[in-house]
Amino acid sequence: MSLEVLSKAKVCGGWHKQYSHSSSRLNCDMRFAIFLPPNATADTPVPVLYWLSGLTCTDENFMQKAGAFAKAAELGIAIVAPDTSPRGDDVADDDGYDLGKGAGFYLNATQAPWSANYHMYDYIVDELPTLIEQHFPVTKVKSISGHSMGGHGALTIGLKNQNSYRAISAFSPITNPINCPWGQKAFTHYLGSNKELWLDYDACELLKMQASSLPILVDQGDADGFLAEQLKPENLLDAAKQSNTEITLRMQPGYDHSYYFIQSFINEHLDFHSTHLFS
Amino acid sequence: MSLEVLSKAKVCGGWHKQYSHSSSRLNCDMRFAIFLPPNATADTPVPVLYWLSGLTCTDENFMQKAGAFAKAAELGIAIVAPDTSPRGDDVADDDGYDLGKGAGFYLNATQAPWSANYHMYDYIVDELPTLIEQHFPVTKVKSISGHSMGGHGALTIGLKNQNSYRAISAFSPITNPINCPWGQKAFTHYLGSNKELWLDYDACELLKMQASSLPILVDQGDADGFLAEQLKPENLLDAAKQSNTEITLRMQPGYDHSYYFIQSFINEHLDFHSTHLFS
Repeated sequence: MSLEVLSKAKVCGGWHKQYSHSSSRLNCDMRFAIFLPPNATADTPVPVLYWLSGLTCTDENFMQKAGAFAKAAELGIAIVAPDTSPRGDDVADDDGYDLGKGAGFYLNATQAPWSANYHMYDYIVDELPTLIEQHFPVTKVKSISGHSMGGHGALTIGLKNQNSYRAISAFSPITNPINCPWGQKAFTHYLGSNKELWLDYDACELLKMQASSLPILVDQGDADGFLAEQLKPENLLDAAKQSNTEITLRMQPGYDHSYYFIQSFINEHLDFHSTHLFS
Repeated sequence: MSLEVLSKAKVCGGWHKQYSHSSSRLNCDMRFAIFLPPNATADTPVPVLYWLSGLTCTDENFMQKAGAFAKAAELGIAIVAPDTSPRGDDVADDDGYDLGKGAGFYLNATQAPWSANYHMYDYIVDELPTLIEQHFPVTKVKSISGHSMGGHGALTIGLKNQNSYRAISAFSPITNPINCPWGQKAFTHYLGSNKELWLDYDACELLKMQASSLPILVDQGDADGFLAEQLKPENLLDAAKQSNTEITLRMQPGYDHSYYFIQSFINEHLDFHSTHLFS
């Protein structure tokens, strides 16, 4: 697997770089970004935090707006930000911002036309970490975080691969997609109308079925315009109780759904991940 | 003078807000953004750092990408980010990214068609601070900073109004616009062909004529693609010597012209301004 570097910029003593590569699982060229802290060398590889972004995002939103690099440099953590869907002229799309490109929902689509490319679950779980571990001075120790649709991705991927990650965190996650409009629309198109098949990509359903051995930190702004209809963090707490899983859910007064919210608490999430990545 | 709020988001315990207002000096509606730290109240007003952005920018680039709010909240400093030119359908423009909208160069244009609206110097020096001090819990204590074209703006406005500011800083400033392509193009259009009239907007020429009583901090990346042709920080040092002004110019190895560079050192600039805003 080869990589083409698209950009690089020194930041906080480390490096932000964007790459493109041919994804075998997504059947298209993909772009991702990586932050490498200053101490990342072949002799001293570092652990990786995978960041999954929300609807309409690319690899750039978090990297440009989260203000995460000073803390990640201090802690010695690499950050990888993939794109949010397959891309390219040959990839199926939809006019809605919440379906198709920019809205991969971190699942493996089974329905045409989406099934040709939309396998973001496999890409995040297998293909991308393999690529990262081949090409960069990182260890196999990793954790996962994300925002909104990416918070759904972090929770579901982390819960289903508890041996692969050390910790899960999320900002404003879609906790219960089978019970909100964004999730119901996406799952109907990507997975079909048999709702039994949706359960495997719903963090609440996963938590009801199996406890999490991974620590989970969730921040949610109480002034988030999507809170009641789309995000439903109370459902995540209820589900966690059913499997006796402890989740730290912090309702943050006055904060909305934007990257200003993420910027406000990203350092605390990095400290949380650091505790578990280096334990 | 009235303000219309366009957006607001809580961030780092404070607030980021965007406003529009009718500018009498620019003869158009203008947008600006303000960050108010959590301790800014009518009873405890805070000092203000004015941030001037570079070519093609609006009020949003710094606010979204600099990662400045955690530190500004801690220090108790408000930040105001104006737009970089007059705006609107009735405002003269040019196809080039370095002339017209997004490229006001923080001067008062004297040549048609620019002279109808392009009075960014007066706007930054007088109209905007008056507006800010009327509407927000801030003191009259202020300092100024900026990037690239905005670094030119911060240096020239600070040097010409030394009683109005406590400190000047700049990232990658256009230090000597009369001797670089960006400046020569802009000044020819905005100020005409008489180069004597350009000197008043050139930081090097200003520093040759008069020492600065204000502390000046400049950061410049040595991997900046615009360094040799457009920015010329060595000319600023030479000019400062002629008036026995001390300037702290830090050449930062490996850094480019992007906001990743700004994000890397903004906290040090905020500490620098804080020292002088609260002295």
